[in-house]
Amino acid sequence: MSSKQLGEFQLIQQISQQFSPAPGTTGIGDDCAVIPQQTGLDSLFSTDMLIEGTHFLLEHADPYRLGWKSAAVNLSDIAAMGGKAVASFLSFALPGDLPEGWVSQFISGYKDISELFQCPLMGGDTTRSLDRLCISVTVLGESKSGQAKLRSSAEEGDLICTSGFIGDSAAGLDCILSHTADTPLTEALIRRHYLPMPRIKEGLALAQIEGVHAMMDISDGIGSDLRHILKASQKGAVIDCRKLPISEETRQYCSLSGKDPLEFALSGGEDYELLFTISPDAEKDLTINHFVIGEIVRGEGVSWQGTDKDYLGFRHF
Amino acid sequence: MSSKQLGEFQLIQQISQQFSPAPGTTGIGDDCAVIPQQTGLDSLFSTDMLIEGTHFLLEHADPYRLGWKSAAVNLSDIAAMGGKAVASFLSFALPGDLPEGWVSQFISGYKDISELFQCPLMGGDTTRSLDRLCISVTVLGESKSGQAKLRSSAEEGDLICTSGFIGDSAAGLDCILSHTADTPLTEALIRRHYLPMPRIKEGLALAQIEGVHAMMDISDGIGSDLRHILKASQKGAVIDCRKLPISEETRQYCSLSGKDPLEFALSGGEDYELLFTISPDAEKDLTINHFVIGEIVRGEGVSWQGTDKDYLGFRHF
Repeated sequence: MSSKQLGEFQLIQQISQQFSPAPGTTGIGDDCAVIPQQTGLDSLFSTDMLIEGTHFLLEHADPYRLGWKSAAVNLSDIAAMGGKAVASFLSFALPGDLPEGWVSQFISGYKDISELFQCPLMGGDTTRSLDRLCISVTVLGESKSGQAKLRSSAEEGDLICTSGFIGDSAAGLDCILSHTADTPLTEALIRRHYLPMPRIKEGLALAQIEGVHAMMDISDGIGSDLRHILKASQKGAVIDCRKLPISEETRQYCSLSGKDPLEFALSGGEDYELLFTISPDAEKDLTINHFVIGEIVRGEGVSWQGTDKDYLGFRHF
Repeated sequence: MSSKQLGEFQLIQQISQQFSPAPGTTGIGDDCAVIPQQTGLDSLFSTDMLIEGTHFLLEHADPYRLGWKSAAVNLSDIAAMGGKAVASFLSFALPGDLPEGWVSQFISGYKDISELFQCPLMGGDTTRSLDRLCISVTVLGESKSGQAKLRSSAEEGDLICTSGFIGDSAAGLDCILSHTADTPLTEALIRRHYLPMPRIKEGLALAQIEGVHAMMDISDGIGSDLRHILKASQKGAVIDCRKLPISEETRQYCSLSGKDPLEFALSGGEDYELLFTISPDAEKDLTINHFVIGEIVRGEGVSWQGTDKDYLGFRHF
């Protein structure tokens, strides 16, 4: 975790201390805010800001993929609560010198993923920026009353699972940054990086199972993200690195390029798979693909087993 | 209306054509999006983006007032539908060189107006910007099912009213830009510019009255804003400029400075008063301060009576 991120978390803490959420609601600090409606449903809210220069470089960012990803990261937060998507709101500040057709292609990517998850764009704001492009997306979702899966509900003895492979997005980014020649293998990995698929369907299935306790999406990398569940739940974890689900594509790419697949799986982010904890006797009820990678234990921090290498990102544990 | 704004409206049109809102909902094009809940309530959503260099200059913007205004403009959109505020979501991208204490003061202004309207901050996103500050706020509101006042409901014969004085904010901006010496008079006007007061209470009262047809808030100036109601309702209007409500403060300031009060009232924006139309026989039911300034007629565009001066901003009518 960089000092930049620490600064962000401190800032969020400073702000959240000043606003106490109303009784029955969940405010700042989870993947979504949760606000009960009057009818057995809870409203979920996720919002994210993407800034040129910080999150993407305009000259390298394909507008279609950026539109897709802008919606995807918020849809993934809805998935992380076990909710379904209802509507989205898109604001952007556009510099005057955007290439012809840029906005149309951006909207095209945004629209394709919105249709896939039946989440229509219902409003927003468009304005001018002097120079840098700025995008802000808010997604409204809903879940059955009290069924949203929070980060704070992990229990001792829970199995820790992911809904799919981790490390593909980081391997895809590595292909891009190292200008690896296009092959079906690198294209598959790059696609995972540019066009992440929110696990809404999987999240909805997990929300049905009472034994699923804590849940979040993997956006910063499992090393960093797991820490949020542990801190919110006041628990510790043991992770067996030999069980981390690494795809055949990432393994092949690493074998060809001499890279370390564990590094992609542990430190790389943006996989947008779900990370969840489940009581051992409920695992048989799981109908989705999943991989058990460890266990929730008493205490704090993570004990990493099955590797003796000190991976970047573990320093804080 | 500047070409910049025209570009914005064309862009919104281009985007909205690609997303058709679900039946029973109101999507892009009003002050808020309206999404029915399952229990006699509608959810309202307003979102706005403020960009350094476009909407404010960091060296001149007092952070407390900017925090206030960031929430105020969205609360005003909720007021414009006749709704009450429920919660807000704040995202910002912060440059690294913000002065010490800047964020705390911004949050302080944001918090004060949020508490005034019982609208807690429930979530958001904080991130870094390479240079310019960018702020995006989404406010969730609610209104009784089907009771939200749209722009499209003006009827022939309706009286056109405002909920208060118009032109004060523009006169306040004029005080700032012309470096007029501080007096109680200029301070009152400047306060109207920097700390606008959303008309939530008035909007809620207007929402109770069936004879109130179309409603919006005055953010761009009445000349420009009225056009939205007329276009959405496919109607025209006659406005009597002698009836435009101009405060004693703005009149005095104009008399001292040689400025034209009508110009502030017609072309100036950011008053955040409500602009609404009401059937003449329902006017007696109004319990809020209001000023009748004209009438909805068959046809299109605005006929301006009581002045022979060609004010900037009328060109398009």
